[in-house]
Amino acid sequence: MEKPGLPSGTRDFGPVAMQQRKYVLNTMEKVFQLHGFQCIETPSLENLSTLQGKYGEEGDKLLFKVLNSGEYLKKTDTEDLINKNYSNITPKIADRGLRYDLTVPLARFVVMNRNEIQFPFKRYQMQPVWRADRPQKGRYREFWQCDVDVVGSNSVVSEAELVEIYQEVFKRLDLTVEIRINHRSILDSFLGILGSIENWNSFMVAMDKYDKIGRQGVVSELENRNLNHAIDAWNFICDTSELNSREEIIQSLKNYSDIQGDSLDKGINELELLYGLLDNTENVKFELQLARGLSYYTGAVFEVVVTDTKLPREYSIGSVGGGGRYDNLTSIFGLKDVSGVGVSFGLDRICDIMDVANAYPDFSESEGVLVCCMDDVALPSGAEIARNLRLIDVSVEVYPAAVKLKKQLDYANQKGLSYAVILGSREIESKTAAVKNLKTGEQVSVNWSEIQNFIK
Amino acid sequence: MEKPGLPSGTRDFGPVAMQQRKYVLNTMEKVFQLHGFQCIETPSLENLSTLQGKYGEEGDKLLFKVLNSGEYLKKTDTEDLINKNYSNITPKIADRGLRYDLTVPLARFVVMNRNEIQFPFKRYQMQPVWRADRPQKGRYREFWQCDVDVVGSNSVVSEAELVEIYQEVFKRLDLTVEIRINHRSILDSFLGILGSIENWNSFMVAMDKYDKIGRQGVVSELENRNLNHAIDAWNFICDTSELNSREEIIQSLKNYSDIQGDSLDKGINELELLYGLLDNTENVKFELQLARGLSYYTGAVFEVVVTDTKLPREYSIGSVGGGGRYDNLTSIFGLKDVSGVGVSFGLDRICDIMDVANAYPDFSESEGVLVCCMDDVALPSGAEIARNLRLIDVSVEVYPAAVKLKKQLDYANQKGLSYAVILGSREIESKTAAVKNLKTGEQVSVNWSEIQNFIK
Repeated sequence: MEKPGLPSGTRDFGPVAMQQRKYVLNTMEKVFQLHGFQCIETPSLENLSTLQGKYGEEGDKLLFKVLNSGEYLKKTDTEDLINKNYSNITPKIADRGLRYDLTVPLARFVVMNRNEIQFPFKRYQMQPVWRADRPQKGRYREFWQCDVDVVGSNSVVSEAELVEIYQEVFKRLDLTVEIRINHRSILDSFLGILGSIENWNSFMVAMDKYDKIGRQGVVSELENRNLNHAIDAWNFICDTSELNSREEIIQSLKNYSDIQGDSLDKGINELELLYGLLDNTENVKFELQLARGLSYYTGAVFEVVVTDTKLPREYSIGSVGGGGRYDNLTSIFGLKDVSGVGVSFGLDRICDIMDVANAYPDFSESEGVLVCCMDDVALPSGAEIARNLRLIDVSVEVYPAAVKLKKQLDYANQKGLSYAVILGSREIESKTAAVKNLKTGEQVSVNWSEIQNFIK
Repeated sequence: MEKPGLPSGTRDFGPVAMQQRKYVLNTMEKVFQLHGFQCIETPSLENLSTLQGKYGEEGDKLLFKVLNSGEYLKKTDTEDLINKNYSNITPKIADRGLRYDLTVPLARFVVMNRNEIQFPFKRYQMQPVWRADRPQKGRYREFWQCDVDVVGSNSVVSEAELVEIYQEVFKRLDLTVEIRINHRSILDSFLGILGSIENWNSFMVAMDKYDKIGRQGVVSELENRNLNHAIDAWNFICDTSELNSREEIIQSLKNYSDIQGDSLDKGINELELLYGLLDNTENVKFELQLARGLSYYTGAVFEVVVTDTKLPREYSIGSVGGGGRYDNLTSIFGLKDVSGVGVSFGLDRICDIMDVANAYPDFSESEGVLVCCMDDVALPSGAEIARNLRLIDVSVEVYPAAVKLKKQLDYANQKGLSYAVILGSREIESKTAAVKNLKTGEQVSVNWSEIQNFIK
C-alpha cells in the first residue's frame, strides 16, 4: 500500500487555513475594488515561449516545464539523447510551462486584448504561481501572488495609489509594515561613477544582497567584483539612507557632485510628486539601497516588509510584497509605448506572518445549526426543518445518522455551531423540537413553526 | 518579435468573464456553506504516484506530467532513450503531475489528515483541474471543478443533501436542470444476466455511450461486444426508464425475474429513502441507463444536465455535473471502511450555458466614482476626495492624468461608473467640485465637505 504524500514545497489547506487565507484574500480584494481595479485571471499553463527569457537566466531554470503529450520524444535527435544535450532536447519535449508570476501573463494579456481593453487598464489578479526553487521558510514551490497594476498611464498618481493600497490592506490586516521606495533613475545616475553598463549591473547585483549580507558584506562583494572604485559611492548610499528625513536624503543626493544630471532630477522629482499625493508617509521609507532583482523596472520600485511588534524579535521572513514601474514590458510581445506600474502581495508569507503575529480574527465560532435526529423516522422532518432555516440564511446541517446524541453534539461543538435542534419520537409526535443553545447549554422545547423565529 | 498566444484548451478571463465566473462561484459557495460544508484546497501539483492508476488507462494518458528539474535524464537508461521506451523513461523524468480531479486529492487529504479531521467530513473545494484531452465545445484542458463531498458516513441523508444542493444552486442561477439518478446496486443485479464480471463491465461501457449513440447504437455496440444475450436486458432498461413515474419503474424492476436478489433490493431501498428525504422530486429523474464512467462508484450515481428553454433547441454541451457514492476511495491510500459521497459542478460549462441562456444578472453598471482633475495641481485634492469617499465604502478612482475632460468621462462611461467628480482651478479655489451624475447627465456644484453625503 502506497503511503501518500505531497510534492516538496506544496501544501494542503484545511478548513481553518482556508478561512484564514480567504480572510486575507477578501481584505485585499475589497481594497482593490474600492480603488476601481477589476479582476482578471490567466491560465496556469503558458507557452514556454511566453515565459522563457523574461525572468533572467536564474528564472528560466526555475520554470516548471510540462511534458508534451503522447510520443514526446518523436522530434528529438537520438544523438542529443545519447549525449543528454538538454538545450536541444528540452525545447522539443516541453512546449508549455507553469505560470511563474502574474506580470508577464498580464503583459501577454494586454497585448492580445489591446483592442478590447480600456486604458488606463486597472487590473488585479490573485492566483497561484510555481517556481522550482529550493523550499525553505516562507518559500514554497506553489504559492499565491496578488497583483495590482495600472497599465497605459505614466502618471505618478498610480504609484501613489499603489502605495495607498499597500497601506490600506496592511492596516485592515492589523499588521505594521514599512514600505520601501526607491527610483531607478536615481540609481541610473550612478552610471558615471561605475563607468560602464556592465559595472553598473554588477553593482546592482551586489547591492541587491544588502538585506542578506549587510553593508560590509556588500563592500567585500564589490571588491570581489573589481568595483573598488564604487565603494565610496556605496558608503555614500548607506550613509544617506540613514538620514532622518526624505528632505535630508534629497539634499544629500543633490550635494553629491558625481551623480548630478537629468536622471537624478527625474528620480527626485517623481518621488517628490509621489510623496505629495500621499496622505500618510509615516511608514514610507526612501531607501537608496533598494534595487529589486527584476531588470524590467524603469521607474519607482517598491518593497514591503512587516515590522510589527506582534512578531517575535528574531522572526525574519523577507519581504511580503514588491513592485515598480515598467515602461517596456509589453514591448517584449510587440506593443510599444505602454507604461505600467504594479505591486504584488505574497499571500503565503502574509498568512504565515498573520499566524505568528496572532493577527487573525477568531473564526472558531460559527452561527450554524445542527439538526440531530434520534431516530431514522425523524430524518425527513429534520430535513424539512433544515430547509426552512436555510430560507432565512442560517447554515444548517442534518447529522446524517441517528446515532447517540452525545456523538452528534460533540460534532456540533467541535465545529463551533451555535444551536442543536433535537428530534426524538416524542418531539415528532408533538411537532416540536428540543432546541439547545450550545454556548449556554440552555435547552427549550420549540414548536416547528416557531423554530425560524427562535433561531433568528 | 514573437506573437504571443495561449496553449490550446486554455483561456484568459477578462473583467466581464471574471464577474460572471465569480457570480457562479459565489452562488455555489453560498449554498455549500448554508449546508455546513467547509472549504479546503489542495496543491495543483501532486506526485504522479498519487494520481496514476486512479482514473483508468485513458485517464493516465490524459495526465499532464511535469518534467523534473535539472538533469532530468540522469536516471534514464540510454538503451531506453534510443528505443524511445516511454514506459521506462517517463517515470524517471517526471515525478509530479497536475491535478486531474478533486476526488482523488480529497481521498489523499483525508488519509493524510485523518487524525485531525472530524467525521463526517463535509468539505467543498473549487479549483482548476487539467486534462490533456482534445479541446472541443465545452471541453477545456484547464477547467474548474467545484466539488461537495461528505466523507465518513454511509447515510443516504448525504445523498439527499447533495441533490438538494444541486437543486438550490441551479434555482439560484435561474437554470432549469434535470438531475438523473441511478444506483450501482441496481446495475449490479444484472450480473446474473451478463454471466461474468468482464461481460458486466463491457455492458456498462456500452451503456455509458447511450447519450451519444442512442438506444439502437448501444444495441449494435452490444452485438460487437458479443453481448447478444444482453440485448433483451438493454431493451428492458430503456423501456423501464421511459415509464412515467418512479413507482412504475420500481414495479417494473420488481417484476423482472432475472435480476431479483439482495443487490436489487438494496438499490431500490436506498433510492426510496433518498426520495423520501427530498422536498421536491420534480426535476429528479430515475434513469436506469446512467452508469457514469468512473469505476469507483459503489452506490447512488448522479448526473445533471441543463434542460432550460432559454437555451436554443439544438444547443448541446453534455452534463454540467455528476457524482456518486464511493465506499472504497480512501482504501487506495491505506484507509479502509470510509464511505463517501460527492457531486461535482463543472464551472466552465455552467458559465458557457449561463452565457448562451442569457441568465447572468446585468453587471455592466457599477456604483463607482471617477475623480477627474483638469490640472496637475488638482491631483492632491482629488486624491483626498477619493480617500474620503472610500471611507464610506464607495469605489473611487482618480483618473491618473489631467487630460481632456471628454477622455476622462469616456473612461468613466465605458466602465459604467455612476458619478464623475470634476476638479478644475476654479473648483480648487472655492473648495468645491462639479459632481456629474453619469446616468442622468445632471451636474451640480458641491462643497468638498458635502461630497460624501451627496454621493451616499
